Amino acid sequence: MSTTHSERLAGLGLTLPDVPAPVAAYVPAVRSGDLVHTSGQLPFTGGELPLTGKVGRGEGLVDPVSAQQLARTCALNAVAAAASAAGGLDAIEAVVKVVVFVASDPAFTGQPAVADGASGLLGEVFGDAGRHARSAVGVSVLPLDSPVEVEVTVRVRS
Amino acid sequence: MSTTHSERLAGLGLTLPDVPAPVAAYVPAVRSGDLVHTSGQLPFTGGELPLTGKVGRGEGLVDPVSAQQLARTCALNAVAAAASAAGGLDAIEAVVKVVVFVASDPAFTGQPAVADGASGLLGEVFGDAGRHARSAVGVSVLPLDSPVEVEVTVRVRS
Amino acid sequence: MSTTHSERLAGLGLTLPDVPAPVAAYVPAVRSGDLVHTSGQLPFTGGELPLTGKVGRGEGLVDPVSAQQLARTCALNAVAAAASAAGGLDAIEAVVKVVVFVASDPAFTGQPAVADGASGLLGEVFGDAGRHARSAVGVSVLPLDSPVEVEVTVRVRS
Repeated sequence: MSTTHSERLAGLGLTLPDVPAPVAAYVPAVRSGDLVHTSGQLPFTGGELPLTGKVGRGEGLVDPVSAQQLARTCALNAVAAAASAAGGLDAIEAVVKVVVFVASDPAFTGQPAVADGASGLLGEVFGDAGRHARSAVGVSVLPLDSPVEVEVTVRVRS
Repeated sequence: MSTTHSERLAGLGLTLPDVPAPVAAYVPAVRSGDLVHTSGQLPFTGGELPLTGKVGRGEGLVDPVSAQQLARTCALNAVAAAASAAGGLDAIEAVVKVVVFVASDPAFTGQPAVADGASGLLGEVFGDAGRHARSAVGVSVLPLDSPVEVEVTVRVRS
Repeated sequence: MSTTHSERLAGLGLTLPDVPAPVAAYVPAVRSGDLVHTSGQLPFTGGELPLTGKVGRGEGLVDPVSAQQLARTCALNAVAAAASAAGGLDAIEAVVKVVVFVASDPAFTGQPAVADGASGLLGEVFGDAGRHARSAVGVSVLPLDSPVEVEVTVRVRS
């Protein structure tokens, strides 16, 4: 028997965080047919952003290694949002697309390594079904001065 | 009988703007199966951008309240584009995904409040069917120096 | 008999570049149902970026005409990635959505003209089937200091 996503998640020592209640017209994730699109997820941990600021190398910047870890947290939050709309983690058939926005110092060009934090988490949780198309871009600033924001599209089992 | 999207739009005192004619390979919206993807919409009003520049607080910046109103206009333009590809406003079953790009001063981190202008309009026009996943990001600059750009994905009734 | 995409590509004197092998959980393109989402594509030519930096007018910037050509290259790379996941170029029924990220000097607002490089290539290769929804945005910096990044969604023949 193959390992389920839930079993892999538990094996990683991770649990899915609570998904915030919908506020008005804007919700954490929406299912349409067999796809679930998540909202852009910030690296909230226990309701707080562990770090804020722009990613780069130098004084006053969030270092790339920390940013990679934040991207991992964003991805975990996105999985939680997707699972809530899909009917549970194991109802997700595959990850389809990931966009990683990195609030970047203009001199910082290592967005792919930051995004690897998100891709790695998805691979660990979903195995082969976690293989996804990805865009990583550097933006000037993100909501609440978050260093990273990640949105995910997944396919639900039919 | 439930209220239609068209009735709600009229009740808001709004009409859908004209959708620009397609230019070459790039068109305002494309239907694929039961999804319609719009192009990124700028806050054109009567063919002009009411404001240009970066959003933030301070001299020479577009204030967040004005930007929220611009996001509302972008969303209305996106609804018009989506409706044109869907076969009319009432052929839209639900809003799925919204991405709000805010041309931001690097110190401005209030992109979600700006994006609420788009989300609010969609909620007012579509009611519960307007509930969407959303990403809001701050970018360095947008086409024609627009302060806001909004793209929308909707599902069409089958 | 109508002209195939492959015939048009050959008529343009173009060939699809090799698609890089997947690295871990992140792959060049993913098929889900009848849609293929590509990863964000940089303008790699023979494994190298022909230019790096921000797009704009002035000393030390990548000029808009060169950036338009880079967007064309990104689009060709995206077509190659999409074709690899679709089962070949002629298995692609239509282009659906294109997002063009332009690493922009804050004073540069000509992202649409840069994006026209991508749209034009898609129109030349796919003809009427190349008509797509498009978002063009200016961002602060892109991976490896690439001036342009393009992601594409296409529909596969069923």
